[in-house]
Order: sequence, then structure tokens, then C-alpha cells
Amino acid sequence: MTRTSLQHMQCSLARTADVVGDKWTLLILRDAFFGLHTFTQFQKNLGVARNILTNRLDKMVADSILEKVAKKPGLSRFDYHLTERGKALYPVVVALLQWGDKWIFGAEGEPVRLLDKKNLAPIQDIAIQARDGRYLQHGDICSVPGPSASTAFINAFEKRNTNKTSQ
Amino acid sequence: MTRTSLQHMQCSLARTADVVGDKWTLLILRDAFFGLHTFTQFQKNLGVARNILTNRLDKMVADSILEKVAKKPGLSRFDYHLTERGKALYPVVVALLQWGDKWIFGAEGEPVRLLDKKNLAPIQDIAIQARDGRYLQHGDICSVPGPSASTAFINAFEKRNTNKTSQ
Repeated sequence: MTRTSLQHMQCSLARTADVVGDKWTLLILRDAFFGLHTFTQFQKNLGVARNILTNRLDKMVADSILEKVAKKPGLSRFDYHLTERGKALYPVVVALLQWGDKWIFGAEGEPVRLLDKKNLAPIQDIAIQARDGRYLQHGDICSVPGPSASTAFINAFEKRNTNKTSQ
Repeated sequence: MTRTSLQHMQCSLARTADVVGDKWTLLILRDAFFGLHTFTQFQKNLGVARNILTNRLDKMVADSILEKVAKKPGLSRFDYHLTERGKALYPVVVALLQWGDKWIFGAEGEPVRLLDKKNLAPIQDIAIQARDGRYLQHGDICSVPGPSASTAFINAFEKRNTNKTSQ
């Protein structure tokens, strides 16, 4: 399998896509959040070929999403655990899940319901909010170069703004 | 290229991963949100091989994420526009972007900053919230079978609960 690395791109989405932009990786991530820890558990639940699973688990460990933890000190057998970096992907997983609930299952109703443990009420839909709490849509947001923007993006941004001003 | 379809899985995340679980698809989606519309624009910005781009654009149209819109009535040339279903993926795109900002660029600072157009303040980080607004982590959430849960998930859920009750 050819892997095209996007690590040259000065873009957070491109670099994140290089880590989780793969369907098996997303399913392993889902299962890890669901509490699965071993190669056998992932293999059984996903029905995926062993070589594909090995490849994806190795990459997730290399990307510090999962870490190998010895089952017992001194044993060579290990479990896979989510790292802090991996756990921070939970909003991504929930956003993907909720999109599927609405746009694929729709009226049929969702297969899995996520509840707040405290009162068993459904959690809110993931949404984008302004500092003051207003809900924002794509059209309410603009993008500007940040501290590590590429020269190309800064130039494009400045050109766009000059054009606007001169119109 | 072999595409493994996950359409047999009764899981919103698996079905969404079948739609966007691919790095080029995610980058095309990012560019579409950024305002690119034509094959040439995507090709130039991504530097991707034409056959890969054609394949991904065709799949995104088949999945109703993008739609082809004639440049002018009666013309056979067309632009690609995000559908409502495609636009609803914006929280996924922002969640991926913010994860990369924090966990890949980190102290270096983000390449792109998303601002609320109204006051040019940065938008909030995407987070999971309870109905009453509390922020929830993975450990604060439980999953239960929804209306279209698979029999396997319902059985596993009931078994787990029986075990808990009998302990």
C-alpha cells in the first residue's frame, strides 16, 4: 500500500488527515474509546485482515495515538491504550458519529445513543460556538494566517484583502 | 485501488468513515469550505494526481457531499459545490483542524486562525457538552443502544448490564 505523506503541508487539517484520514484507523479509534485493548479484540470486532490491522496499529503507535502497555510487568504481551493525544480525538469521533446519525440513519434513528452519565440525558450535538456562546455556521467564520502560516497563505490572504480594499 | 465498503456496519461512525475516511477527501472538503470550486483549482492547490482527484470527486458526488453545478445554463462545464449534507461536515473539519493546531503545531502556533466574522475573536474549541452546558470528557459519557441498534450491540449491552447487576 502506498502512503502519501502530507507532512510537508503547513496545514493542521492536512497533518491530522495524515494521522486519522483512514477508515480502519477511525474504526480502531472508535473501538479503543469503546474499551477494546487487544489485537484479538480489534480483529474480532472489525473482521479486518490481520496485516491491515497490524499496519494500522503500528502507525497509530508511531503517531502516538495509541501506546503499548505490558499486560504485566516483565511480560512481552501488551495491550493498546489511548494516549492523551489519542483521547483528545474524542470530539472528532463524536462529530463523525453525529453526522452519520443525522445524514445516514436520519429518520431510522441512531444505532448508538451517547448519554451524559450524570442524568442519562442525550449529549448536545457538536457545534461551533463564538466566544460569547453564539452558534456559528461556516459563513459566520473567516480564516486568517496564524503564527505558523505558510508564505503562500499569507500572500494569498494579503492579495485577497488588497483586492477587497481597492474595489 | 481497493475500496472496502463499511456499508454493512450498523454504526454511524463506520458509515461516515466510508464517506470521509480518506485523506484526499478531507483535503478536498477543506478546500471546498475555503471556496474552491473547480477541478483545476483543487488540482493546483493539492498537487494531487488527476486520476486520484477524479476518483475522489466522483465519490464525493456519489455520496452527495458535493454536487456538480453547470457554470452557465446549457454549458457542459461545471463547478463543484458543497451540498447541505456536505456543509454539515463543517464541525468535523474544524475538530480535525483544532486537534492539529494543538497536538501537531502546538507551541509553534496554528497555521490558520478561525475567527468569528462579527468581532474577529477566535472561535471556541470544539467540545462535547451536556444538555445543561457542562463540558463532558469521554469518561463522563456512556453509550446505549439507539432505535436502529444492531442485535449484536443490544445483546452485548444487556449482557454487560446483567453482569454489573449481579456483581
